Amino acid sequence: MQRYFTDAPLTRGAQVTLDKDIEHHAVTVLRMDIGAEFELASAGQAFRVRIDAVKPLTVTVIEPIDRNVELPVAVTLVCGLSKAQKPEWIVQKGTELGATTIYFTGSQWATVRWQQDKVGKKLARLQQVAASAAEQSHRNVIPTVAFLPQLTDATKLAADAKLVAYEESAKEGETGALVQTLHANPKRLVAVFGPEGGIAPAEITALTAGGFVLAGLGPRILRTETAPLYLLSAISTLTELLG
Amino acid sequence: MQRYFTDAPLTRGAQVTLDKDIEHHAVTVLRMDIGAEFELASAGQAFRVRIDAVKPLTVTVIEPIDRNVELPVAVTLVCGLSKAQKPEWIVQKGTELGATTIYFTGSQWATVRWQQDKVGKKLARLQQVAASAAEQSHRNVIPTVAFLPQLTDATKLAADAKLVAYEESAKEGETGALVQTLHANPKRLVAVFGPEGGIAPAEITALTAGGFVLAGLGPRILRTETAPLYLLSAISTLTELLG
Repeated sequence: MQRYFTDAPLTRGAQVTLDKDIEHHAVTVLRMDIGAEFELASAGQAFRVRIDAVKPLTVTVIEPIDRNVELPVAVTLVCGLSKAQKPEWIVQKGTELGATTIYFTGSQWATVRWQQDKVGKKLARLQQVAASAAEQSHRNVIPTVAFLPQLTDATKLAADAKLVAYEESAKEGETGALVQTLHANPKRLVAVFGPEGGIAPAEITALTAGGFVLAGLGPRILRTETAPLYLLSAISTLTELLG
Repeated sequence: MQRYFTDAPLTRGAQVTLDKDIEHHAVTVLRMDIGAEFELASAGQAFRVRIDAVKPLTVTVIEPIDRNVELPVAVTLVCGLSKAQKPEWIVQKGTELGATTIYFTGSQWATVRWQQDKVGKKLARLQQVAASAAEQSHRNVIPTVAFLPQLTDATKLAADAKLVAYEESAKEGETGALVQTLHANPKRLVAVFGPEGGIAPAEITALTAGGFVLAGLGPRILRTETAPLYLLSAISTLTELLG
């Protein structure tokens, strides 16, 4: 069933009028009519709703949808910059796989930089990608996309578990850090991923001094846009399939 | 270190002359010279080699690289067709994440079809994508990319574990099938993924009659190109991080 997000507060039985973007998609693109039902999520809770009128699009909230689709750990990804469409891919796939917050960040060895005056526009575009991916994957919340000027700013983020996906750890055969971290049942986990140029030793030192643990994500070398997807899938496997 | 694949049989101390593609990349693009070292994989085993001459490119095999980067389960993906660059993404990311064989397949509800006279060209292109991804992620083998005319032909593939990633199972909260399947330590696993249009009930019936088990991959709805990446990451987590 189609899902949309709204800022309107929703409660069972309430009647709400939705904004023009949703009206256009539901009524003009999908040709939904009076009596048709869809899903509407607001403030982390989804509801089944039924159309009362199409112009303006007005619905009655029928009932909450109780199936929980959110990961039991709120995962914040901090991703070094990468070329071309890769940030969009990270946001789209990261949203499908359950991320809560996705930061992009400048770093010492990055081969890509975001000019300061373009950050706002890039984030707005990526936030839209997150919104559509959240609708399509029936998330209850839209992940927040934001920017950190420096990778080591990750040490300032609040979390009760902190990991760095580090290629050198993977090469040395490190396999226990992620599993061990999740055994402690963290509520909020921050994971840092280097840019295409890798993470500089000084950055690794600052991160470990800030409480970050170096983690290998299996023995294969993963590209910068693949590692966050492995991490989210691994967290889902350990907490939702095994948990 | 740069890695290439060759069909030449390799043994410690042997001297081998490599083909023009490798020569062009190593000598012309990367400007490697006599004495430089790189990695060469053949028949599932990688070796460190040293350049003796650049035209034609001739190397001495120094020693085998014993670090194992292959998944302990040989995973065959059978993927319904999807639009645009998605098959390339599945091959690239599937290779990084450890797949052994990747089939694309026609199916009843697919919205994309591959014309018979274009299958060869598409597979050749995808096989190239697999080769570069295998080099970059330092795999010991290049996954094979192939085509199955019908999704239900998956029942003819040899395997000791067979799964279908089924959205309806995910919606019903199925979480145990993948974990249970891997507990039996299969050596060869086949996993079927529907196309963008989904898997038809008749296809599900044929697959389950052929011994396939319906598996949910977490509670979120994953796109056709995301589900295989989740599966491979989950298998790595269960066998390489926990195993």
